[in-house]
Amino acid sequence: MAVNLPDIGTLLPVNGIELGVAAANIRYEDRLDLAVMTFTTGSVAGGVFTQNSYRAAPVIVAEANCGSVRGLVVNSGNANAATGDVGLRDAERMCSLLGEHIGCSAQEVLPFSTGVIGEYLPMDRMADGIEIAFKASRPEGWNSTATAIMTTDTAPKGVSVEFDVDGHKIAATGIVKGSGMIRPDMATMLAFLGTDATISSDVAKQLAIDLAEHSFNRLTIDGDTSTNDAFVVVATGKATLPVVTDVNSRAYSKLREGLQPLVQELAIRTVRDGEGASKFVTVLVEGGRTERECLNVAYTVAHSPLVKTAIFAGDPNWGRFCMAIGRAGIADLDPYRVGLHLDEVCVATDGKIDPGYVEARAAEVMALNEFSVRIHLGRGTASAKVWTSDLSYEYVKINAEYRT
Amino acid sequence: MAVNLPDIGTLLPVNGIELGVAAANIRYEDRLDLAVMTFTTGSVAGGVFTQNSYRAAPVIVAEANCGSVRGLVVNSGNANAATGDVGLRDAERMCSLLGEHIGCSAQEVLPFSTGVIGEYLPMDRMADGIEIAFKASRPEGWNSTATAIMTTDTAPKGVSVEFDVDGHKIAATGIVKGSGMIRPDMATMLAFLGTDATISSDVAKQLAIDLAEHSFNRLTIDGDTSTNDAFVVVATGKATLPVVTDVNSRAYSKLREGLQPLVQELAIRTVRDGEGASKFVTVLVEGGRTERECLNVAYTVAHSPLVKTAIFAGDPNWGRFCMAIGRAGIADLDPYRVGLHLDEVCVATDGKIDPGYVEARAAEVMALNEFSVRIHLGRGTASAKVWTSDLSYEYVKINAEYRT
Repeated sequence: MAVNLPDIGTLLPVNGIELGVAAANIRYEDRLDLAVMTFTTGSVAGGVFTQNSYRAAPVIVAEANCGSVRGLVVNSGNANAATGDVGLRDAERMCSLLGEHIGCSAQEVLPFSTGVIGEYLPMDRMADGIEIAFKASRPEGWNSTATAIMTTDTAPKGVSVEFDVDGHKIAATGIVKGSGMIRPDMATMLAFLGTDATISSDVAKQLAIDLAEHSFNRLTIDGDTSTNDAFVVVATGKATLPVVTDVNSRAYSKLREGLQPLVQELAIRTVRDGEGASKFVTVLVEGGRTERECLNVAYTVAHSPLVKTAIFAGDPNWGRFCMAIGRAGIADLDPYRVGLHLDEVCVATDGKIDPGYVEARAAEVMALNEFSVRIHLGRGTASAKVWTSDLSYEYVKINAEYRT
Repeated sequence: MAVNLPDIGTLLPVNGIELGVAAANIRYEDRLDLAVMTFTTGSVAGGVFTQNSYRAAPVIVAEANCGSVRGLVVNSGNANAATGDVGLRDAERMCSLLGEHIGCSAQEVLPFSTGVIGEYLPMDRMADGIEIAFKASRPEGWNSTATAIMTTDTAPKGVSVEFDVDGHKIAATGIVKGSGMIRPDMATMLAFLGTDATISSDVAKQLAIDLAEHSFNRLTIDGDTSTNDAFVVVATGKATLPVVTDVNSRAYSKLREGLQPLVQELAIRTVRDGEGASKFVTVLVEGGRTERECLNVAYTVAHSPLVKTAIFAGDPNWGRFCMAIGRAGIADLDPYRVGLHLDEVCVATDGKIDPGYVEARAAEVMALNEFSVRIHLGRGTASAKVWTSDLSYEYVKINAEYRT
C-alpha cells in the first residue's frame, strides 16, 4: 500500500564495491535476510546513527569501526538491540566472520541489523549466511541487497546517480529500508550509500551528516525512533577526482550537491513506503522566525494522530491543523496570523477559515494520494519542510501483527 | 468500546447549584447539546485551561471571568475555536444571554464550548437553547448535563462524594467529557466540579491547579491537546465550614484530600472512555532521578504509536518499550539498568530480557483489558504514573469519520 513508489529499476554498480546476499533463516525461512558488501582497499566510511539511548549493539560497533573500511554485513529479521554484552560480542563476531573471508581485520567491517528488538542473533546461521553471501558477491548485487534488508517494506528502494565534479565522473548508488519507527534525528532505519568518490574518512563523516540533514532528518512516519537507525556513506576512491580532504572546498560542495538528490529521493521513497501509508504528504511551514520553530511546527503537525487520521480520511478539518500548530511550543505565537493552504487551496487566513473557502475544493485536494500542507506562521521569513504519511487502519494492522 | 467504565449512577445535588439542558440543534438534531449551571450568590470559581496557542474564545472569556460567578453555559458540537473576534463576541454573548436570565452581569458567567473547531456558533439557536435550559434548571440536573457535554464519549461520566472537614460535611459532584485530543497539561477537554465548600476565589484557583496535577495532568489518549480544555471548580459556600482563605491551612489540605479521589476518578474514567480504547493501561515509571524525567519516560511510552499498537494487539514486545524509553530524552540513561514488569511478570532486567522470562505469561497479562506497565530506570528514587489507552482500529475509525 505504498504511495506512488517508483520501481527500483536496475541499480548501477559502483567501482570498488561488490555485494552478495543469502537466505540465512534468521527469522523467516526462504527469504533473503542477509547481505554483505565488500569494498576495495582504501575505501572509507562515515555515518550518522540513532540518538536512541538503546543504541543497538551493531550501531555501537559500526560507529566505532567507521573510517578505513573493507566490508559491511547487514541482516534483517533481528535487530540485535537490548541484547547487552552478548549482543556486542555477536556484532563483533559478524565483523570478524566477514573479515576472515575478505582478509581484513574485524575493525574494518561495519555490522548492521534490523528487525525484532530484544532477541539474540542466531550466530550459527549468521555464519553460514555470511559465507554464502560473500561467495556470491558481485558488482551487480545492489538490487538483491536492497531486497535482503527489507522488513515491513513493501518493495526494495534504491537510486543510482552519475554526475560530474570538475570534469571527473562520480557514480553513486544508495539503498534504504524503512518503514515504521521512523522520525527525525535519524529517520530511516538503514541506508547505505556507495560511491566511487575520492574522499578522506573525516570528509565521509561530514558528508553523511550533511546529506542526512535535509533528507532523512526531514521525514517522519510515526514519531518513533529506532534503536538501529543508521545512514552510512562508503567511498571507494576509484573515481579520478583528486582526493577531497576539506569540507570547505568547492569540490566538496559539488560532491554534496551531486549526491543530495539521491539521498533525498531515498528519504522520500521511505515515506512513500511508510507503514500503512495511503497518502504522501509534504508539510511546508513558512513565515517562522527560525528554521527550528518551523521544524517544530512541521513535526507536530506531521506526528499528530488527529491530523494523520484526518489525512487518511481526506477530511480538510482545519481544526485539527490549528490544534497541532497551537501545541507546537511557540510561546508567543499569534494564532490569528496563521494561514493554511492545501496545495493551492487557501483554507485559512489570519487564523480563521478564509472568507473565500469552499470545503469541496479542499476535499478534492485531500482526496489525492499526494498533496502539500502549507502553513504560514506570519512572524518571519524562515521555513522548513518535512515529508510524512497518514495514519490508517493498515498502520494499526501492520504494527499490531508485527510479530505474529 | 470503553474499558470497564462504571455506570454514572445518580449524581448528587450540590447545595447552591442548579442545572438545566436543552437540545439546541447546534450540530445534530434532537440531541442534548447545551447546558447551563446557575450558582447561588457568593459562589466562586477557579480553573485551569489549555496551554494550546489556539485557545478557543470561550476559554479566554471563562478564564477572565473566574472569581465571583453566578452561572456557566456550555455547548457541545462546536468548539468556537479559531473563530477570531466573531468567536470572542459569541462567547461573551453566551454569558450575557445567561446573565440576563439569572439577573447578573455577563462577567459573572463562564462560557464553554466543545466540538468541531473553526466554525462559528449558531447564536440564534444558542439563545433559544440557553433560555430553555435556564428554565429547566434544577438541583438534580447533573446527570443530564453530563450527557449534554458529550462529543465522541460513549457514555456520560460523573462522580459524587461527601466527606467531612473538621466536623463539617462537604458535598461535591464532578462531571467530565473526553475523549480524544487529550494529553497532559490540560488533559480532559471539559470538567466541572461543583462543591458547597466555603472558599475564597483565590483558593478556588489554587484548588483547581492542585487537583488537576495528579489527575487530569496524568493521562493521555493520543498526545494531542485541545484548544478548549478546561477544568473548573465552583464552590457555592453553602457548607457550614468557616471560609478557607489560606492554601497553607489544614482545612485546605483536608478539602483537597477529600476532593482528590473524585477528580482522579473523573480522569481515570476519561481514559477508560478514550477514543477507540480497548485497554486501560497504567504506566508507572520508578527509579528515576526526578519526577520530571519519570514523567517524560511515562509519556513517551504512553504516546508511542508502536507501543500503543502492541498494547492493542496484546503483544508483549519488549523492543517497543525499550525503543520508547530510549527516545525519552534522558541523555545519560544507562539502558542496561532498566527493568520492565507487566503487572507482576518481570519481562526485562538490566536492560535485557529477564533470564526467567516466559513470553506466554506476559501475553496473558497483555490479553487483559486492564494492566500496568512498570518501568524501573535504575538511577534514583523518583517515580511518576500516567494512565493511557491503546491505539486501535476503532481510534482510526472514530477520528477518520469524526465530521461525517
